[in-house]
Amino acid sequence: VKLTTVLDSCLFVIFGATGDLAQRKLYPALYNLLIEGRLPENLAIVGTGRRLETREAFINMVDESVASFSRRSEPKFKNQFHRMLHYLQTDFSDSEGFAELASFLAQVEESQQTRGNRVYFLAVAPEQFGPITEQLRANRMVRQSPDTWQRLMIEKPFGRDLDSARALNAQISALFPEESIFRIDHYLGKEMLQNLVAIRFANSLFEPLWNSRFIDNVQISVTEAGGIGTRVRYYETAGALRDMVQNHLLQMLALTAMEPPVDLSAQAIRNEKVKVLQAIKPMTPFEIEANVVRGQYAAGLSGGRVVAGYRDEEGVAPTSTTETFVAMRLFVQNFRWAGVPFYLRTGKRLARRSAEVVIEFKSMPGVLYFASEPRLQPNLLVIKVQPEEGVALQFNAKKMGGTEGIVPVKMEFCQNCEFPHHSPEAYERLIADAIRGDTTLFTRWDEVEHQWRFIDSIVEVWQEASPSFPNYGAGTWGPREADELLRQDGRQWHVSD
Amino acid sequence: VKLTTVLDSCLFVIFGATGDLAQRKLYPALYNLLIEGRLPENLAIVGTGRRLETREAFINMVDESVASFSRRSEPKFKNQFHRMLHYLQTDFSDSEGFAELASFLAQVEESQQTRGNRVYFLAVAPEQFGPITEQLRANRMVRQSPDTWQRLMIEKPFGRDLDSARALNAQISALFPEESIFRIDHYLGKEMLQNLVAIRFANSLFEPLWNSRFIDNVQISVTEAGGIGTRVRYYETAGALRDMVQNHLLQMLALTAMEPPVDLSAQAIRNEKVKVLQAIKPMTPFEIEANVVRGQYAAGLSGGRVVAGYRDEEGVAPTSTTETFVAMRLFVQNFRWAGVPFYLRTGKRLARRSAEVVIEFKSMPGVLYFASEPRLQPNLLVIKVQPEEGVALQFNAKKMGGTEGIVPVKMEFCQNCEFPHHSPEAYERLIADAIRGDTTLFTRWDEVEHQWRFIDSIVEVWQEASPSFPNYGAGTWGPREADELLRQDGRQWHVSD
Repeated sequence: VKLTTVLDSCLFVIFGATGDLAQRKLYPALYNLLIEGRLPENLAIVGTGRRLETREAFINMVDESVASFSRRSEPKFKNQFHRMLHYLQTDFSDSEGFAELASFLAQVEESQQTRGNRVYFLAVAPEQFGPITEQLRANRMVRQSPDTWQRLMIEKPFGRDLDSARALNAQISALFPEESIFRIDHYLGKEMLQNLVAIRFANSLFEPLWNSRFIDNVQISVTEAGGIGTRVRYYETAGALRDMVQNHLLQMLALTAMEPPVDLSAQAIRNEKVKVLQAIKPMTPFEIEANVVRGQYAAGLSGGRVVAGYRDEEGVAPTSTTETFVAMRLFVQNFRWAGVPFYLRTGKRLARRSAEVVIEFKSMPGVLYFASEPRLQPNLLVIKVQPEEGVALQFNAKKMGGTEGIVPVKMEFCQNCEFPHHSPEAYERLIADAIRGDTTLFTRWDEVEHQWRFIDSIVEVWQEASPSFPNYGAGTWGPREADELLRQDGRQWHVSD
Repeated sequence: VKLTTVLDSCLFVIFGATGDLAQRKLYPALYNLLIEGRLPENLAIVGTGRRLETREAFINMVDESVASFSRRSEPKFKNQFHRMLHYLQTDFSDSEGFAELASFLAQVEESQQTRGNRVYFLAVAPEQFGPITEQLRANRMVRQSPDTWQRLMIEKPFGRDLDSARALNAQISALFPEESIFRIDHYLGKEMLQNLVAIRFANSLFEPLWNSRFIDNVQISVTEAGGIGTRVRYYETAGALRDMVQNHLLQMLALTAMEPPVDLSAQAIRNEKVKVLQAIKPMTPFEIEANVVRGQYAAGLSGGRVVAGYRDEEGVAPTSTTETFVAMRLFVQNFRWAGVPFYLRTGKRLARRSAEVVIEFKSMPGVLYFASEPRLQPNLLVIKVQPEEGVALQFNAKKMGGTEGIVPVKMEFCQNCEFPHHSPEAYERLIADAIRGDTTLFTRWDEVEHQWRFIDSIVEVWQEASPSFPNYGAGTWGPREADELLRQDGRQWHVSD
């Protein structure tokens, strides 16, 4: 990953500038990038949306967003930030309005000397991805030339199955070359997922052990304590499999399981990631029944208070079969991983919020301490993604003192303990990377394609039968079947404390 | 290592009962073992020495020793401890006196019902090892029978070269079988050296990496901030090579480098340790010149105050050539370790007190991060023996935040941080082991033999030439040549903070 020291001037155009994502993530990220001197000298942020009418209103909204969600606050940058902000009220479905936007952008481009370079950030509902792309084309707002660039940053979901993803991709890739498309999986912007690659390939210690000869199984968990929040409409038609597994968990799998790339370029790293996704062993419908567990939460206790079940959430159908939990066992069929189960787990309203990758190393039953202490714990390497960011290694040591006996102990490295607010938000990194044209932390089309192919195979089977939901209580670790999945293999989920 | 649940009753006879070692280490250890219920039901402690006249005086002395040096104090055990204490004033060189001791022991044995089992602890100057053994023989105080046992615990130094060690060993092994001889190397009683074996063989993670394919070099350091203390007379004739390297450092080497034993028995573990000592590559005089550095401290700053040079210490000859520092590079010539240098270092009046084993793993120059970041630190596994007890793993991680770059970070496990005084003294473990007949943590004769053979080869070369002492300042890390030794190999001493 190379840092171009001089950043190109550009317009940063946000579609959906008055929406939730823009307010919670984009303005705070841009503000922090400004404070840290990581924006080009000439950067104009152009917001466009339906709700607000004037630039003043827009600036007020941005100020509030920064005040509420930014991890840093240095008032002396406020004026400079204000000067970067521009706004035009637009209805994306109205082609006249879009033509007006085109000329507004040209105007700002001229006055701010941003030289024709543009990032278009689609922070809008997925059904608008297509129409906006079409308008960008119709208004000739994308003209890749040797001297200027236009890039597209596009939020998840990228389609809702392989077919719709293909259609969307056909549309945008008719307009943008692959290296100008920045498909966001914001998990890839998280510190510890970037660190996973560094830890694997900047150390000689881990790589020799990173294979089926030494690793017993890998557990990838993203558990949420919260419920459905404000995303009901989208979630009801998506579910945990599409919302979390298709992108975040499969990307975590790809980073964990990938071969060493030939170099650290975006292309080389993504070449290796896609090979992992491609190597996921396809499952027959019968195997899917046996290896994939879905769940939906009932009412329960979460964080000390009684919370409603999913079907009682506002806007959810009382007979909804949307899954809020998925656990699965899958295999990566290549030389490195043959025979090593990967257990994935994600869900809402679980006992605790946590995202981590746990590498469980093989034990040696019958040998030395493994013989005399039958309950010896396996060695675990835990990459903690959130809320704590760090690495823990659980190993066995002599019990202190005169008594015999071996106990599991932990070495820990905490990345965000010393400076809890120092750790940048994923969007800071992702926006900075898009501006400097680095696609490493974005999903390439062939990755998306393999992800959907795998997910579709599961959805197909699920559609055949109605699940008996709800099947787990809010505040628990999910349905019994998810534990059973590992117990069948003589294993268990590792939950780090 | 098996724990016999019922401990045999016995006499614990201390020769040199009024001496420094007994007061600083033995009584506090026995007291702590009593508190922890780790002594046999009938245990009588018999002190014998020249200085004190009465049992009352002895008990007072023991009380003071416990008050000053014990890590625990539970007054309710005081009376019980007093009842265990017996004393006879003896001059060991007087055979009549010794005969009196023999009948005194028989008497205590009778009254305390200790059934003929005895531990003889030689806490005396080395020149008395022989005479006392001879008296034990002459007075028939050792008669191994199927029902009773007599054991010998013997302090270092075990000889001052191979010849003298052989003579001593011939004398004591004429009287005691090998399994009844407990040659003390108190480093083996330290928590983290026992833990080194557990860490290596109770984990599947470390063993695959524990060889020349993955390890670049091993550094074994025992550095002392203190000077010569009260041991001038002994030290002047011994020096750091005999005092520290011959026993402690070579034992640390043996534990670090040994093959996995067939089981965890004393015999099996010592079989593997002796193989390491045997495999140390002998050096020609020329190689000794090139690979072994000796030093002696000059005056300097230690702990913030000016301290005298070694030659100015009271009792030291003004032209003394005794070394207070040794550093060396050696090789263990077997399949596991061929080509991996082991660097040993010990000395007095160094910058800091610390004992540790550092495993430096190989780097991969030219590959991925190792290519782009030429100063990438190697991976280090550090076994901290004292003063902190624990394990640290230094590895490389992504620098936090948006900037690129890899930095070394540390995972740590601290064994004695939570309960700093919980960690038992080495002598507690050693005494408990001798009473239950476990020789694992004691040095077998063949180990001693190989240790002296190696040490003698160095002494022989050193005797040929006068060193230019002093050659390092108190409070530094030793002579320049010790750093040079590693710099020649493109390496450096790792000092953990």
